Amino acid sequence: MAVAVITTMERMARWEPGARERLGAAALELYAARGFEQTTATDIAQSVGLTERTFFRYFADKREVLFGGQEVLQKIVVEAIASAPSESSTIETAMFALEALAEFFPDEQRAQSRLRQTVIVANPGLQERELLKLAALAQRIAGALVERGVVETHATLAAETGVAVFGVAFRQWISDEEARSFDEIQRDVFATLRLVTQA
Amino acid sequence: MAVAVITTMERMARWEPGARERLGAAALELYAARGFEQTTATDIAQSVGLTERTFFRYFADKREVLFGGQEVLQKIVVEAIASAPSESSTIETAMFALEALAEFFPDEQRAQSRLRQTVIVANPGLQERELLKLAALAQRIAGALVERGVVETHATLAAETGVAVFGVAFRQWISDEEARSFDEIQRDVFATLRLVTQA
Repeated sequence: MAVAVITTMERMARWEPGARERLGAAALELYAARGFEQTTATDIAQSVGLTERTFFRYFADKREVLFGGQEVLQKIVVEAIASAPSESSTIETAMFALEALAEFFPDEQRAQSRLRQTVIVANPGLQERELLKLAALAQRIAGALVERGVVETHATLAAETGVAVFGVAFRQWISDEEARSFDEIQRDVFATLRLVTQA
Repeated sequence: MAVAVITTMERMARWEPGARERLGAAALELYAARGFEQTTATDIAQSVGLTERTFFRYFADKREVLFGGQEVLQKIVVEAIASAPSESSTIETAMFALEALAEFFPDEQRAQSRLRQTVIVANPGLQERELLKLAALAQRIAGALVERGVVETHATLAAETGVAVFGVAFRQWISDEEARSFDEIQRDVFATLRLVTQA
C-alpha cells in the first residue's frame, strides 16, 4: 500500500505540468532575494509546492537553473553556421550564429534575464562560470567556422569578436529602460565594432 | 645554539640568489613531466636543493608559479593606455597596451612559455584560470579606456577585440617552429582582425 502511494506521488511529480518552468522562475526569485548560496533546493521546491526530489528531477544542481541552457545555445550556433550561405564571409557567418542566438532572447524573456543577471553579478563564482560559458561559446563558433574551411586564426578572431558583440548587446538589452529587441541592439553593436576596429 | 642555526638557515634561504627563478623553472619542468596535481611544493623545492618553506616564501601556492605575473601584466596595460597620445583612436590605444604587453614576451621567454602552455593545456582547472585571466585583462583595458573618456560600449569592444588579438598572437608565438617576435606576430594578427571584421 505504502509502495503504491509513493509510486503515485512520483508519477504526479514526474508529470507535473510546467514544473521545470515554475521551479526555474522560483529559483531565480529566491537567488535574487536571498543570495544564491543561501538558497537550498528544498527552499525552491517548497516555494512552488513541490519536493526537493522533484527539483532534482529537472535540475542536476542549483547552478543548472542558471546555466542549463548552455548546450542548447551551442547547438544553435553550430547549426546556424553550418547552414549559412556558402558565399558568406567569415564575420558574416559568425553574425548568422549571433542572429540565431538573438531568437533565444525574445522580449518576454527580458525580465527573467535581468533577474538572472542580478544573481550572477552578486556572486564571483557565478561570474566566473558565466565568463567560461561565453569562452566555450566562442570556441564552438570557431570550431564550426573551421569545419567550413575557414583558417583557424580567422575563425578564432571572428568567433571571439562575435561573442564580444553578443556580450555587449546582452548587457545593453537587459539594462534599465532599454526597449529595443535583442536583434536590433546586436546589429547596432556589430556596426559599432566595425567602426571601432577601423578607426 | 639551535636557534642561531635556524636563523642562519633562514637568512640563507631568504637571500638565496635567483631562488625565485630557479623554483619557477623547476616547477614548470615538474608540472610538465608529472602533471600539475601530482607535483608538490616539496618536490619543486628539493629538485633545486631548497626547502618547501623557501618555496612558500616566493609563491603563495603552486598555481602562483603559473599565474603570478597577472598583476604586473594588468599594471603594464593600464599605464600604457594612460600614456597613449591623446589623439589616438580607441583601437589604437588598445593596441598601445598590447604592444607594451609584447615586451613582456621576449624571445628568451619563448621556451618557458611553451612549457607553461603544455602544463595548462593538460589541466582543465588551469585552462579555466587562464581564460579568467584574459577576461580580467580585457576588463582592465576597458576600464582604462573609459578613464580616458571612451564610451563604455566602444571601450569594451576594443578591449575584448584586443585581448582576442593578444591570445591568437600568443598561441602563434609559442607554436612549433615559429621564429617571429611576439610584437611582429601581434601586428600581423591585428591586421588580420581588421580584414576579418570588414569582410
